[in-house]
Formats: sequence, structure tokens, C-alpha cells
Amino acid sequence: MANALVAQSGGPSSVINATIAGVVKANQLNPVYGKVYGGLHGIEGILQEMFYDLTDMSDEENLILRQTPAAALGSCRYKLLRENEADFVRLFEVMEKYDIETLFYTGGNDSMDTVAALTEYAEKHNIEGRRFVGCPKTVDNDLMVIDHSPGYASAAKFIANTAYQTWQDYSVYTRQEVFVLETMGRDAGWLAAAANLSGVVDLTILPEQPFDKEVFLGELKTILEEKNKAYIVISEGARYADGTYLSAAESKNDTFGHAILGGSGEALKSLIMNAGAAERVKVQDLSTAQRSHATEQSLVDVSESFKLGMSAHMRSMDKTFTGKMVGLVRKDQEEYDVEYIATDASNIANHVRNFPEEWILPNYRGVSQEALDHMRPLIKGNPTIIYDEVTNLPKQVKPYFLR
Amino acid sequence: MANALVAQSGGPSSVINATIAGVVKANQLNPVYGKVYGGLHGIEGILQEMFYDLTDMSDEENLILRQTPAAALGSCRYKLLRENEADFVRLFEVMEKYDIETLFYTGGNDSMDTVAALTEYAEKHNIEGRRFVGCPKTVDNDLMVIDHSPGYASAAKFIANTAYQTWQDYSVYTRQEVFVLETMGRDAGWLAAAANLSGVVDLTILPEQPFDKEVFLGELKTILEEKNKAYIVISEGARYADGTYLSAAESKNDTFGHAILGGSGEALKSLIMNAGAAERVKVQDLSTAQRSHATEQSLVDVSESFKLGMSAHMRSMDKTFTGKMVGLVRKDQEEYDVEYIATDASNIANHVRNFPEEWILPNYRGVSQEALDHMRPLIKGNPTIIYDEVTNLPKQVKPYFLR
Repeated sequence: MANALVAQSGGPSSVINATIAGVVKANQLNPVYGKVYGGLHGIEGILQEMFYDLTDMSDEENLILRQTPAAALGSCRYKLLRENEADFVRLFEVMEKYDIETLFYTGGNDSMDTVAALTEYAEKHNIEGRRFVGCPKTVDNDLMVIDHSPGYASAAKFIANTAYQTWQDYSVYTRQEVFVLETMGRDAGWLAAAANLSGVVDLTILPEQPFDKEVFLGELKTILEEKNKAYIVISEGARYADGTYLSAAESKNDTFGHAILGGSGEALKSLIMNAGAAERVKVQDLSTAQRSHATEQSLVDVSESFKLGMSAHMRSMDKTFTGKMVGLVRKDQEEYDVEYIATDASNIANHVRNFPEEWILPNYRGVSQEALDHMRPLIKGNPTIIYDEVTNLPKQVKPYFLR
Repeated sequence: MANALVAQSGGPSSVINATIAGVVKANQLNPVYGKVYGGLHGIEGILQEMFYDLTDMSDEENLILRQTPAAALGSCRYKLLRENEADFVRLFEVMEKYDIETLFYTGGNDSMDTVAALTEYAEKHNIEGRRFVGCPKTVDNDLMVIDHSPGYASAAKFIANTAYQTWQDYSVYTRQEVFVLETMGRDAGWLAAAANLSGVVDLTILPEQPFDKEVFLGELKTILEEKNKAYIVISEGARYADGTYLSAAESKNDTFGHAILGGSGEALKSLIMNAGAAERVKVQDLSTAQRSHATEQSLVDVSESFKLGMSAHMRSMDKTFTGKMVGLVRKDQEEYDVEYIATDASNIANHVRNFPEEWILPNYRGVSQEALDHMRPLIKGNPTIIYDEVTNLPKQVKPYFLR
């Protein structure tokens, strides 16, 4: 009986582990694979045969895995380049050695490119019985075709909660106050937009809407004149019309050629202070906490992530199922619900789905009602958390790569 | 029938509103005061007769108030100075005008000094029928006499959760990684110490333990050699033996000439990078979120805060009860429980209770088991949160000063 391999890639999220839990659980319900191995540190670890056997995971561990953030199998930023054939040869060697029929790979658009590349390679070299299935994961929510990506909603919920609560906090004094909340979102404004779910954001700066300093300062002045306070949300990828990022950190690129961002909040603070537009600006950069805050998972999000893993496993019983990504589309009905679909991974690879321009209000005044209606069902509900009786903190699995 | 006035002062916390809810609820159960007014923006607003009538608050609003962070009555940093007699004269005038018998004042050691000063003034001038009762509130947990202060535990819980979860996140890659979590705590290390509840912190820098650069870098080196990763927590008030704050010192010493943005976390990053001790340091400053994150209130904390407000109201039926702060002491028994006590506000005013030195391990290696045993019961449990059916976010009261 052939085996399955499941692995994670790219930036972590607070529900990515639920997809792994779904694949493992599906195979327990219908053991079409002899073993379900976890590949540690994505492609990077698979090439080194770093495996952990997940096949017989207990029910309790499966539940705890779902409430554990980040990537319990470890992640990587190692890119499988088509021109680097040695990596492909090695990977198929490893798959043969462990009799891996299906690799489930969870990640963003780079990871879907890996799924597509491996599928192409197998076809080109007439390699049979090796299949590749992608599962979406990105807090940025920038994947094409699907309605939204697991991981986004929980980050969005944490951001909205934090916006609402820090707004309460910054309001308490009578003095003038400007608060800047910085969120992730390199090219897509979905996370910054989600702060608007709180209903308290005055100005929102998204990557999709070029930053015009004069227009922004004009709006800020109007707001401060009206109420002496302004609550601002800015995406890390906020940029001028010529593409220059507001953030100062621009020199280094990561291994995929992405600019390493961070600091648009501090950059905006400097800009406001230098313009003499406010006496006092406080910046909160949500940084790593926003994508790892599993204590505030959305129930919708973590459930969908788990079911998506199950769906991927179930679909893979079809021996022609390869080069696909399983995803979610929203049903066209009033009450929120989704259906699970599959699409070619190449439709996702290396594309970016921006926050829709028609949902962005002019002059940084936030997002439309339609945008709010779209986001609201995603953040609904809290999963029941299992607590550790000694620490009084949520139980979490020890990362498999540390065992 | 005389009235009561309740007001808030100093930095907000995520449970301070529960104390107000307790005072209001107690007066509904036993209406010894005709009205319970909320004084807006502390002493600053009271001097201007900025009142909001809380007497008949509905049960639902009372529950929602308890889950609302910050300070729903607004706060102030206005200090009532003994030499500024006009303020005292004015305050007693206002109390007379509204027939205020008892002022309940919620805050930290400055606020307890206000309670003491007003009590002294009344005694000195033989003013009868005006009484002053303090209720403790500070996330810093630096008040004398009491076991802990409402507000601390919820911030501690958020910090411990964030430490645990960002540790999961920073662990996922194979590369070397140093993570620095900055917490509040200018003079007392209680909040930074709480990160150790997560069990994943390698190095902890508290204000109570003078920072020795060589010792720190030596420990960091040892840890990185062992596992290629180091998770560090630093208090905003971290300082050298001569009292210089790390942030102040490092902004002068940064050899790259870069401006230091933010506090001790960024300063520590510069120090590590400049020493060549690590290739990569990520900083997360928890900033405002840590004291306002009511979505992760500790059930113990919010319940104690509410009961403390009730206790203050009930004790004030004694006409000699003035110049006191109501507080919590821990019962001397295995299972965690507290009793409510009263102490002279002057015992609290202008003192700082540090994190106990005997609980601090040498060489920044965290805190003792005794310290963990002390903190763990405080973060236990989650209150049932009431959600808004439209926004899917927790319901919160609209601040009274904005109505």
C-alpha cells in the first residue's frame, strides 16, 4: 500500500495545522494510504528525508494540533527552481524510497508553483504514481480563484479585535491622539482592510491605493479638527504611486525576490510628525502576533481549514488527481456557506489577488459596506479550546521537528 | 439621600471597567446612594462637572461593561497637587453641589495618593460627609500591601499566550532566529516575568536585574550554539546598573547611526546586531494591545475586579470608611483563593512593589518555580463573551465620555 506525505511551506498562520489534522483524520476514516508521513520543513526537509509518522495520531492530539498555531511540521522558504533538476531527481528518489504516492503541500502561491512544477516534471518524464495536491494557506489572502484562504480569517479577527480594543484605550484621555496600527500584507490589503470590521478606523492605507501624502494629511487634518483623535490602519506594503514603499526597510530581498517589509507604521509616524500634523503619534506593529494568535482563531476559519485537508485527502483517491489545489468558494446565497472545489495549481501560482478596488473608499476613508459584508461571516465563532491544567494556557502540540 | 461618584485614572487595563460595574451593581442590590455618577476623565473631568448617571444601568450593559477594555469613563493624568489648594476647594464644591458622599477612585499609586490627599484635606478642614475610597488598577502590578492588582493577570495572560504562539511561529524555519518580545513595566518586571508562564522563554530581562551586556551576550551565545534560536523577553524598563535605560543608551551607541524606533526591544536588537551575536533579530513590541486585550481576559481577574468594586461599595456603608484602598490578599492555602481587605491609601501612594529578587534566576535565565506557582492561578479561565450578531465581534460599551 502506497503512502502519503504532507508538508507545510511559507509563512505560518494560526490554522494551517488544521489542514494537516484533516488529512490525517481522513486517512484514519478511510486508510487509502498505509502511512501518512509529515515532511519536516517543507521541500527542504523532504529532500533530506526528514519525516515524522502522523498515521496513528490520537484524537486528542488531532484536536490540540488544530488549536496550535504556526507550522507544527516546520516550514521553509526553499524554492524548487525548474532549472535545478537535481532537486527534482532527488525528490522523486525520496518519494520512491518511501513509496509516497501523494504529496499534500500546504502554502501560498509559491507553494502552489512547487505543486505545479512537480506535476509538470512527472508528466514530462512519464513518472507514474506520484501525485501532488496543494492546500491553500496564507494570512495575506492573496490567492486567485478561491473566495478566501484558510488563515486569513483568524488573522483578520485578531486585527479587528485589536483595533477595537486599542481604539478604546487610545480614546480615554482628553488630549490629542493619533494611533497607527500596522498590519501585514505585502501586496494585498486584505488584512489592513479587516481592521475596518471594528467600525472605529478613521483612515486606512492599503497597498492597492497609491499613497498621496497631501491628500492623506488633508484628511487627517479634517479628522483631528473634528474630534482631536485619529485612528489609522496601514498595511506593511503601503506605497507611493511610483511603487516606492513608505517603509524604510527596502534594501534586502528574501530568497524569492520579495522585498522585506516592516516599518510602514513608523514611517507614517515620521511623516505625520515632520509635517507638524499632530503632536503625538503612537504606533502598534502587530508583527508576528497577528498570524500566530490561535487563542483567537475564528471557528469558521479553523473548521474550513480542517475540512479542506479532509477534502484534499478524499479527492486524492482519484488516481488522476494531481497538480490541483483544493479551495473554497462561497455559495451564492444569503446565509454564509462554502463549497470545496479543486483548481489547477498553476492557476494560483505566482499570481496575486488584490483587495478589490471597488471596495476601497476614496481618500483613505476605509472600505465599503459590501467589503464588510464579505469579511464578517469569516471571523465568526470561537472554537472550544483545550487548556493545560498545570499552566492554565491552551494546550499546543510540540512541533514535530523538535521531537 | 446622598450620592456616589465613581471615576478612573491612570493607564487603562482590560478589566478596570469591571470595578465600576461592581460598584454600580452593589448599589442596585442595596441602594445606599441615591445616584451613582460616573465622573468622566477622572479628577480632570470632575472639576468640570462632567458626570454620567450610571445608577440604573441595565444588567446587559453591566455584563458588557465588564468585557470592555480601557476606561469607559475616560481617564486622566492630571495630578492633584497638595500645594494647589484651588483644586481641592473646587472639588469639594462640586461634591457639595451634587451631594456626593463617596468618591470611588480607581487607579494606581498616583491615584491612591489622590485618595489620601483628599482625605487629609477633609480632615484638616473638618469637612464632614465627604469620603474617598480607592480601588487598585494597574497592569504593572506594582502596588504595595496587596497580593496583586486587577488588570495585571489579564495582561499577563495575553503576554504568556503571545509568547507561546510567537515562539511556535519563530521556530518553524531551520535558520538561526532571535526573537525579542517587549512588554510594559517601567520599574517593575511583573509583566515581562509573566512571559515565562509559556515555558518557552530563554532569556528574560527585568528592570530589577541590572543589565550586564557581557553576561547577556555570553548567555545568548551559549543558547544559540545549543539550538540556533533564542527567545528573549525584555521589559520596557530594562536598565544598566547605573540606572540608564537600554533604549536611551543604545540610541546613542548605535554604530550604524540608525534612529532607534521604539523602546528596549529595538535597543536590544541593535545591541545584538552590533555585537555580531546574531544574523537576524525580530522584535515584537506588545505596546497598547497588552493592556487592552479584553478578548483574552482572565476569568479570575475580571471576577476579582468586579467583586472588588462591590466590596468597596459595601464597605463604604461604614460612615468612618475613608482614605482607604480596597484590595486582595491571597489566602494561605493550597487552592487559590483571595480575601478582600482594606488598607490606608497612604500605604500604597507613591510606592513601587518590585518583582521579588529571590524569584529572579541569575544570568537572565527567567524566574523560579515559586514565581510561576504564584502567577499561574491568576490567568485561569475565560469569561463568557457576549458577541454582536452583526459584527461578530465582542460587544463593548460606547465610552460614556463620547455619549
